Amino acid sequence: MVSKWDELQAALGTRFNRVELLIQAFTHASYRNEHRKSPIEDNERLEFLGDAVLELVVSEYLFHLRPDWPEGELTRLRAAIVCEPSLERFARNLGFHHYVRLGRGEERSGGRQRPALLADVFEAFIGALYLDQGLDAVRAFAERHMFAHLDPSSVTPDYKTELQEWVQQHTAADLHYEIVEERGPAHAREFVARVIVGVEELGTGVGRSKKEAEQHAAGEALQKLKGRTLGGS
Amino acid sequence: MVSKWDELQAALGTRFNRVELLIQAFTHASYRNEHRKSPIEDNERLEFLGDAVLELVVSEYLFHLRPDWPEGELTRLRAAIVCEPSLERFARNLGFHHYVRLGRGEERSGGRQRPALLADVFEAFIGALYLDQGLDAVRAFAERHMFAHLDPSSVTPDYKTELQEWVQQHTAADLHYEIVEERGPAHAREFVARVIVGVEELGTGVGRSKKEAEQHAAGEALQKLKGRTLGGS
Repeated sequence: MVSKWDELQAALGTRFNRVELLIQAFTHASYRNEHRKSPIEDNERLEFLGDAVLELVVSEYLFHLRPDWPEGELTRLRAAIVCEPSLERFARNLGFHHYVRLGRGEERSGGRQRPALLADVFEAFIGALYLDQGLDAVRAFAERHMFAHLDPSSVTPDYKTELQEWVQQHTAADLHYEIVEERGPAHAREFVARVIVGVEELGTGVGRSKKEAEQHAAGEALQKLKGRTLGGS
Repeated sequence: MVSKWDELQAALGTRFNRVELLIQAFTHASYRNEHRKSPIEDNERLEFLGDAVLELVVSEYLFHLRPDWPEGELTRLRAAIVCEPSLERFARNLGFHHYVRLGRGEERSGGRQRPALLADVFEAFIGALYLDQGLDAVRAFAERHMFAHLDPSSVTPDYKTELQEWVQQHTAADLHYEIVEERGPAHAREFVARVIVGVEELGTGVGRSKKEAEQHAAGEALQKLKGRTLGGS
């Protein structure tokens, strides 16, 4: 007989040495509370650990993926990947909601579909996998079930927003972009943008779309502005 | 000639394969900004990575050190260890402030002694060590230079505070403790405390001091109260 935990492991492409860790990751406190004699604890401590494991695996993924990104962009993107809606989505795609063990009250009140609960289970699962098989196994899992499913636009820095915030915070100047050149054949069109703050041109950028060119111009402007602030000149 | 980086590594008991990572960890953006031609970047990306590495190493240390602690206590304690004042203290004890590379403006304005700056350098150092030598090396470093210096009282759960907060938040009831027994010979004295919320005794605890007995009583009460909430009974 194939248990549901065997099914889950087959679907995930992993095999736990200590299957009780896997089960614990799916055990909500409300279930534990109704089954006091069960040897399996609830998932809260695993969630504590998994949260930190996930943070590291996502951080090093971004660190290596984008060697030229500043810390602010990396932090913004990490937060977008490990936030509750994102973790809930990973959990749901993997069918985790079918495996959660809940108490009767929690089940009745719809806990199985609660985003926060599913995000917690996802973190607890990561914690269990780490304890059972170490960091390399978590990296492999994350590559396959998380990073491969990221929206590409979400792993692009948003320099335009960052520049706008910076300018609003530090100056009273206006900020605008101009497309100063379009070049190349139709199938390999390139745009050149410049960004102007007040009366000063602070950056230019090239891109395959107007928006991309503007993003690059904003990136250059940000680097220049932050340099001035830090250098005090 | 022994360079200052050799000195630092000797003091830390470590040896970097890529010493430029070590130097980068100590390079503030203000320095980088005045030395644009230097091949060594500033420490901000390393800080991003190190923050996550530190979070994991501290989390797993606590997770294994205290197998019976609930998630809330682990989270409270982790926050106390990785907070800015704590990281600054580790950095200062290791003499990191002597090695930071600052721009002139930052130096003049006392940046070398700024707690936030030193905490950032500590995180960046952890990031550099992780990139250069992996997680085991960071664990060994943390054992020796962080965990060995923790105040023992800081790794004890504060159930009394947690219970007080819980009671204030969820009830209008009074909370108080009573010592109901003192027993044993003078050199092995034991106290028994009970905690009363409203008119109900919610927990008892035994300890080598009155305070310890009360902490244990509070821990039992918390478990009971949280069980009721989750179970809905």
